[in-house]
Amino acid sequence: MSAAAYTDAVMLFGDSLTQAWSEGSLAQRMAEYYNRRIDVVNRGFGGYTSTWAIPVFEQVFATKEAREKGLAQEVRLITIWLGANDACLPPTAQHVPIETYRANLHHLIAQVQSPSSAYHSPNTKIVLVNPPPIIEDAWLKSRVEKWTDFGSQGPKPDQNRDAKVTRRYAEVCKEVAKETGVPVVDLWQAIVDAAGGEADDQLAPYFYDGLHLTSEGYAVLFKHLTALIEEKYPELNPEGMTMRMPHWADVDMEKPRIAFDKVLKGRLAGEL
Amino acid sequence: MSAAAYTDAVMLFGDSLTQAWSEGSLAQRMAEYYNRRIDVVNRGFGGYTSTWAIPVFEQVFATKEAREKGLAQEVRLITIWLGANDACLPPTAQHVPIETYRANLHHLIAQVQSPSSAYHSPNTKIVLVNPPPIIEDAWLKSRVEKWTDFGSQGPKPDQNRDAKVTRRYAEVCKEVAKETGVPVVDLWQAIVDAAGGEADDQLAPYFYDGLHLTSEGYAVLFKHLTALIEEKYPELNPEGMTMRMPHWADVDMEKPRIAFDKVLKGRLAGEL
Repeated sequence: MSAAAYTDAVMLFGDSLTQAWSEGSLAQRMAEYYNRRIDVVNRGFGGYTSTWAIPVFEQVFATKEAREKGLAQEVRLITIWLGANDACLPPTAQHVPIETYRANLHHLIAQVQSPSSAYHSPNTKIVLVNPPPIIEDAWLKSRVEKWTDFGSQGPKPDQNRDAKVTRRYAEVCKEVAKETGVPVVDLWQAIVDAAGGEADDQLAPYFYDGLHLTSEGYAVLFKHLTALIEEKYPELNPEGMTMRMPHWADVDMEKPRIAFDKVLKGRLAGEL
Repeated sequence: MSAAAYTDAVMLFGDSLTQAWSEGSLAQRMAEYYNRRIDVVNRGFGGYTSTWAIPVFEQVFATKEAREKGLAQEVRLITIWLGANDACLPPTAQHVPIETYRANLHHLIAQVQSPSSAYHSPNTKIVLVNPPPIIEDAWLKSRVEKWTDFGSQGPKPDQNRDAKVTRRYAEVCKEVAKETGVPVVDLWQAIVDAAGGEADDQLAPYFYDGLHLTSEGYAVLFKHLTALIEEKYPELNPEGMTMRMPHWADVDMEKPRIAFDKVLKGRLAGEL
């Protein structure tokens, strides 16, 4: 019995694309999808790269030891969605060389899957998500607008992203999926397919600043992510998961505690 | 270090009005408000009354013992939003006599505040929220539509709610606030004020079925709830709370781990 009485969690791990809790964001959609089944915890950190994600992972993901002591929720599913910032062009501070990006994803997956890892969690399913396309002009325009809003201090921002470079990072993420056997949402392709092409005006509805997704962009991700979950990890389809606390119409009106005692016993017996 | 590495949580406790994770819902708005500060856990259970909420509370809120062992997040804030279902008319199974509703709210508050309670949590701030108005005709229409959609099986639903009765429950919630010194969001009044009156057509934008709130309805609650938090519990204003993990521009590009080690030490020292 605890403040986080649901013993399971879904962890969304990544950068600003994950961090959003806005209407229609990935987090909001996933929390609604798993409503009353499992807690969705948002561990998205705006601006972070796969290199910086490694020490963060060590703080936000339970060690095997902590989990076994009951000091943490069990993460049933983790989405790892990184690379959008790694793909910044040098000398931007966030730039991570593409082979380092590949190695970082391998490292994060091994942290969860390797029996020798302090974070080994054999019951945690992983889904990789690759970076979506970007709209270069819209991104630069958004940076310049921000700079103007803040009084045009410092050097005027220049272009620090390149759509073709981001595409290569998206490809590497898919290669890591193949190399490790971890399923991946090919968000890059999914957005291009939904948009009907890669032209700026085709991509425009899916991005509000050329980089970050609109609700319509997140809808594409959510559709593919939930289809993947339902196909690859059917045990994580919320429709088959027990609803936390009985449906109200099943509560014994006169003796509500009896129903809850049953639930509690079920939970302690591992049935829930 | 755990899957729920943030040591603090905000718990939203109540019925279906709380349970929603839809766009613009209370949960979505609060998760966005506390983004990267504190986890928002949704403990809303559709159809539940204040009577049924008592055994549920005992399962979802940490015991003092569990908390002290580090087995639970500390709940910094709990919203208790009940009464909408209690106000159903007898013989509806959910009906809870109004004085029982009052006693149940007192009991829940005492569970948190009383030093003799197994759930005593002196660092948990409480906010009560009272039931909003209802639109009787819209509610009955929605019930009959559902009944028709399911093949008109069983007796045709009749009216099981009365706006004047719900109003009395809303008043009792305010009385409990006065009796206990716990602050309350007078949502009943806030919605009527926003609507400009109590007529069905005035209230219509705030409810999608005469009982449950639209995003516009939740916006009224969110505005008043956050104003209350910022006034009564300024330490829970997210603007003054430390952002989890450093801002990306503050990370040492060459040695990212150093920044995180500082964060970790700060957290262990209770600074975060």
